[in-house]
Amino acid sequence: MKVGVIGASGFVGGELLRILIGHPKVELTLATSRQHADDYVYRVHPNLRGFTELQFTDVNPSKAAEQCDLVFTSVPHGTSVKIMPELVKSGIKIIDMSADYRLKDPQAYETWYGYKHPNPALLEKFVLGIPELRREEIKKAEYVSAPGCMAVTSILGLAPLVKNNLIDTDHIVVDAKIGSSGAGVKPTMSSHHAERYGVVRPYKPVGHRHTAEIEQELSTLANANVKVSMSAHAVNMVRGILSTCHTFLKKEASLPEIWKAFRSTYQNEPFIRFVRDRKGLYRYPDPKIVVGSNFCDIGFEIDERNGRLVVLSATDNLLKGAAGIAVQSMNVMMGFDETLGLRNAAIHPA
Amino acid sequence: MKVGVIGASGFVGGELLRILIGHPKVELTLATSRQHADDYVYRVHPNLRGFTELQFTDVNPSKAAEQCDLVFTSVPHGTSVKIMPELVKSGIKIIDMSADYRLKDPQAYETWYGYKHPNPALLEKFVLGIPELRREEIKKAEYVSAPGCMAVTSILGLAPLVKNNLIDTDHIVVDAKIGSSGAGVKPTMSSHHAERYGVVRPYKPVGHRHTAEIEQELSTLANANVKVSMSAHAVNMVRGILSTCHTFLKKEASLPEIWKAFRSTYQNEPFIRFVRDRKGLYRYPDPKIVVGSNFCDIGFEIDERNGRLVVLSATDNLLKGAAGIAVQSMNVMMGFDETLGLRNAAIHPA
Amino acid sequence: MKVGVIGASGFVGGELLRILIGHPKVELTLATSRQHADDYVYRVHPNLRGFTELQFTDVNPSKAAEQCDLVFTSVPHGTSVKIMPELVKSGIKIIDMSADYRLKDPQAYETWYGYKHPNPALLEKFVLGIPELRREEIKKAEYVSAPGCMAVTSILGLAPLVKNNLIDTDHIVVDAKIGSSGAGVKPTMSSHHAERYGVVRPYKPVGHRHTAEIEQELSTLANANVKVSMSAHAVNMVRGILSTCHTFLKKEASLPEIWKAFRSTYQNEPFIRFVRDRKGLYRYPDPKIVVGSNFCDIGFEIDERNGRLVVLSATDNLLKGAAGIAVQSMNVMMGFDETLGLRNAAIHPA
Amino acid sequence: MKVGVIGASGFVGGELLRILIGHPKVELTLATSRQHADDYVYRVHPNLRGFTELQFTDVNPSKAAEQCDLVFTSVPHGTSVKIMPELVKSGIKIIDMSADYRLKDPQAYETWYGYKHPNPALLEKFVLGIPELRREEIKKAEYVSAPGCMAVTSILGLAPLVKNNLIDTDHIVVDAKIGSSGAGVKPTMSSHHAERYGVVRPYKPVGHRHTAEIEQELSTLANANVKVSMSAHAVNMVRGILSTCHTFLKKEASLPEIWKAFRSTYQNEPFIRFVRDRKGLYRYPDPKIVVGSNFCDIGFEIDERNGRLVVLSATDNLLKGAAGIAVQSMNVMMGFDETLGLRNAAIHPA
Repeated sequence: MKVGVIGASGFVGGELLRILIGHPKVELTLATSRQHADDYVYRVHPNLRGFTELQFTDVNPSKAAEQCDLVFTSVPHGTSVKIMPELVKSGIKIIDMSADYRLKDPQAYETWYGYKHPNPALLEKFVLGIPELRREEIKKAEYVSAPGCMAVTSILGLAPLVKNNLIDTDHIVVDAKIGSSGAGVKPTMSSHHAERYGVVRPYKPVGHRHTAEIEQELSTLANANVKVSMSAHAVNMVRGILSTCHTFLKKEASLPEIWKAFRSTYQNEPFIRFVRDRKGLYRYPDPKIVVGSNFCDIGFEIDERNGRLVVLSATDNLLKGAAGIAVQSMNVMMGFDETLGLRNAAIHPA
Repeated sequence: MKVGVIGASGFVGGELLRILIGHPKVELTLATSRQHADDYVYRVHPNLRGFTELQFTDVNPSKAAEQCDLVFTSVPHGTSVKIMPELVKSGIKIIDMSADYRLKDPQAYETWYGYKHPNPALLEKFVLGIPELRREEIKKAEYVSAPGCMAVTSILGLAPLVKNNLIDTDHIVVDAKIGSSGAGVKPTMSSHHAERYGVVRPYKPVGHRHTAEIEQELSTLANANVKVSMSAHAVNMVRGILSTCHTFLKKEASLPEIWKAFRSTYQNEPFIRFVRDRKGLYRYPDPKIVVGSNFCDIGFEIDERNGRLVVLSATDNLLKGAAGIAVQSMNVMMGFDETLGLRNAAIHPA
Repeated sequence: MKVGVIGASGFVGGELLRILIGHPKVELTLATSRQHADDYVYRVHPNLRGFTELQFTDVNPSKAAEQCDLVFTSVPHGTSVKIMPELVKSGIKIIDMSADYRLKDPQAYETWYGYKHPNPALLEKFVLGIPELRREEIKKAEYVSAPGCMAVTSILGLAPLVKNNLIDTDHIVVDAKIGSSGAGVKPTMSSHHAERYGVVRPYKPVGHRHTAEIEQELSTLANANVKVSMSAHAVNMVRGILSTCHTFLKKEASLPEIWKAFRSTYQNEPFIRFVRDRKGLYRYPDPKIVVGSNFCDIGFEIDERNGRLVVLSATDNLLKGAAGIAVQSMNVMMGFDETLGLRNAAIHPA
Repeated sequence: MKVGVIGASGFVGGELLRILIGHPKVELTLATSRQHADDYVYRVHPNLRGFTELQFTDVNPSKAAEQCDLVFTSVPHGTSVKIMPELVKSGIKIIDMSADYRLKDPQAYETWYGYKHPNPALLEKFVLGIPELRREEIKKAEYVSAPGCMAVTSILGLAPLVKNNLIDTDHIVVDAKIGSSGAGVKPTMSSHHAERYGVVRPYKPVGHRHTAEIEQELSTLANANVKVSMSAHAVNMVRGILSTCHTFLKKEASLPEIWKAFRSTYQNEPFIRFVRDRKGLYRYPDPKIVVGSNFCDIGFEIDERNGRLVVLSATDNLLKGAAGIAVQSMNVMMGFDETLGLRNAAIHPA
């Protein structure tokens, strides 16, 4: 299958290229970048030196589609909506990495993203690409919208509890910590190493846009209105997310009940691992252990004194939080083995 | 005044020595360490090279007291209770850095620390050394117990809200992030650079001992039983704490009301700064900006959608969280200018 | 083929396990560890969770050999010499990760390692496992000694120059920078995150043991006595080595001559990449770009003012500097495709 | 004395402000910044919150001089030469932080900086501000040029050897490692945290401009032509420089002879510390121990096998490498105690 990446010079684009180059069912035929047109891909993504002689091109996205059976659109929020109508006309499969097709309510784009969605009819044609929750839909989809990195990390941690009606949905606190690659490739003062190194920067204590996505998905699972209180922090690493989800149990729930909720939701999932050990250094999920892999590690602990249930969920924001889950969705869409190109352990220590 | 540090080879001990060496009213006469007896202080604390020719000694604590008017006891939890009775007999002033005299309820030591307190009568003689909340008591105290680093950081952030009855005291979530110096000087697998670097390790998602201290102080301020749900995370830095305190407002509170609670509590406090800006990189507290200083930076944000109030509080765990606040208490005890030896800005960027 | 790792709980052992688990021609049958006997491998190497249910065992090395066709011995220097004679008797193939069989002159062990080699006759039976320089010998070898991490990084950078007689062999300066995993898994004060973070620690400005190995190999290539002046620095990362090799040209050498020396030495080498670009961020080798891969990236620059030739060589110390090159040697020994289990790009950025 | 900083929004400017605010003999009256005019200083330098209510202004430099007795010009190379003639006319004292007045040979600016110096007559009016080497000149100077950060670090390490004719001046290798603040405040791809974190980036293996300054100063001391072979590396920290100076002894020199060279050169210097211990973690200079202070720590080791003498020299690039040494020069110029505002220990660990 011929696959291309539109907007391939960013961090997510680079990871898509890396995975697709190693994917046994895929031929990577296209990587577009206006800024780097004609440059070798490996100059922008130096880790790919020796793996590809592909060059960036600056072709029109819809033309680009002529060379591909499926494209990943990895362009900024607000840009994707501009190129999508024409791309859709071209008849190829599309996996969009931006936020532009994640929310199903057009009004939500005005509330959370500050723009009026220009092609709201397309919103319902895109399936949110979380295979663990929407595998059957993805199988049939032509268009998939990859979830936000902190959104999917938090959703996967909370879904079993909400689905099984175990927690108070008015007091869900998501305290997220993320590495610097999450802010994208563009250099700014806030991404300057001297300013970004060593921070625990609460860059979005309230109002983070991923909240909308988390509430949308959890409300669907709960069949009720779920409220999420999210705060996002930048910490001193390049990759990785830890979502610490503080929840309060509706009634006293036993440990086996909680385990059952998690196990029944994620039975046989190839990219979910449960981490809750009595000994060892890594008794709970930690981004350090998933960086470089497509895993979402999930663990939890009960605070009996207060009826609190803390769920911990860790991903690599560029993989399970972006390029990895997108390729996983592609595998599902195409009927491939879902783990193709994605089944590897992180390196440790790193 | 002659001052000594018992247990001076650890991280807190080192910071006490550094501050005391530069303190204009103090003569540092003693630094004890069994392990490093007879070594020059600057071999263990290499930053002090050129500042002191003092050597560690291994004298008995009570004998040590003969050389000092005031001592800081900077020994591990469980050790302090052993040396304290004899030290107290010696008649000098004492500032204890351990947890052994922070909690007022002897029973709490069995619950939280797993030991039966051997000299419970001493508990009430120690004042918890948070000048912002107990200045008048400290002025009259002979014995001060320095607060836990994450405890004081969280307490200072939450005190104004609890005192002014603004928040639901059943749903207070404290999500704390701390650097590696917080775990102490002893090398372990969990402090190994290769294992500790790049983590967001939820090392104590429930049951952190500082919870007891936070609940004790907030309950006193509220004159009611306050419940705190705390989770502690290790992040990739050496120093610093950010406490993200997620609270829910009792009723809709206006921004001026909240500001008033903070301002009235901390008016003229020399080591509290409010950080809540509309622009700039550091619009909220961040440990990066307080590391190396004795400040507690406090900010907040309202999540109107959910009635949440997020309070952010940042300190240097070894300074405002330990050695700095202890010297501040000493200044208060002795009637010195409270900022002596402590008034300096952090360096930036670092 | 059945393969085992003796001493599998350290950092190198963990990487051997990870690679061998994913190696298509190998069945991993054994991982020994005295300390962790009966523990699941994934508790010590948490990245392997979900990849293996193997448990550590504490069997006698020679017995262990009964379960394997080939073993990697990944035990400390000085321990390997003790278990080797019996292992050799068992008749299986061996790849030793320690320094105990790298030097060919028994006397060198007294000079550099401070012990008298107890089985010097074995020294000549071990081939130093650098496929780029000794592929034909490795093909025929029963026993391979994996090179030191900083040694092989420096040797690969300098070999083409020495072999082609281009540089003054009395003034070769190797300034090496290495991450914290290079010091091994044992926690010490020097590996404590709080002490190790942010350093540029010249931990061995003279007398580093890898000097012996570099001189041995370069002298062989030069057919003359080559002197190497090495200094080793610990820097703030977990993995990776950069060797900056400052050399002085014997006579004015043109750029094409130097290129020719490198290209002729490493033509078609699967794990050597040349990095010397006019633009881009990564114009020279940088450990950041090889961490997680088996590449040795090599670049150079000429300082015309002083007749200096600076060679830059970067590896992942646990892969091309240890486990990776060892498996590469195994592939060569066994007649497998040399890149099996080893051909992957690093992730970027990370 | 009234002092101002022209170009006060960068990293060096910020450190000048911080030091001057705490300097007992100085009133800070001016901080200029075009970009941040009218902003509070503490918004750009958040560590200064609570220390000053000063605002940036955008006055013409020469006008600015009206408010000051002395100004620090902290503007980029090439800009300083433009504002200097008019500033000089204003009759105030000037300490220039740029490279524009460091080199004495106008031709050197064409060779190393690529521009023809527009006011070469001013070059000889500026004294290079290294008090350890030029104290008497600085005392009498009206104009001082602060040295380059890697230059002064290397010069201080090498001066005693060159002055005492101990080393071969044709084979001096300076291998420098520096933190990200050294590249200045402007965000670029190379300073992006995701790209800069974890690197050992040989960004200037040959041809670094500080080479010119080092050669100028050492040649003056040697009264002969000294050649320096410098390579500069970016490493994963914000502040700090380690210069590893690999030199070759002219003849066998005894340890006491070398000690004598260092001691006689730096006897009683308040900001030079010798670090060469037999035990402890920090047996040699390490930037970690000087960051936040004005010290240059110097150590050395002899490689007897090869006649090599390795000198290690560590500074904080923004302090002893910039703002600190500049204020030290100001103290010397003004007849103040040389250590005013500058005598503090680094914090440790950090």
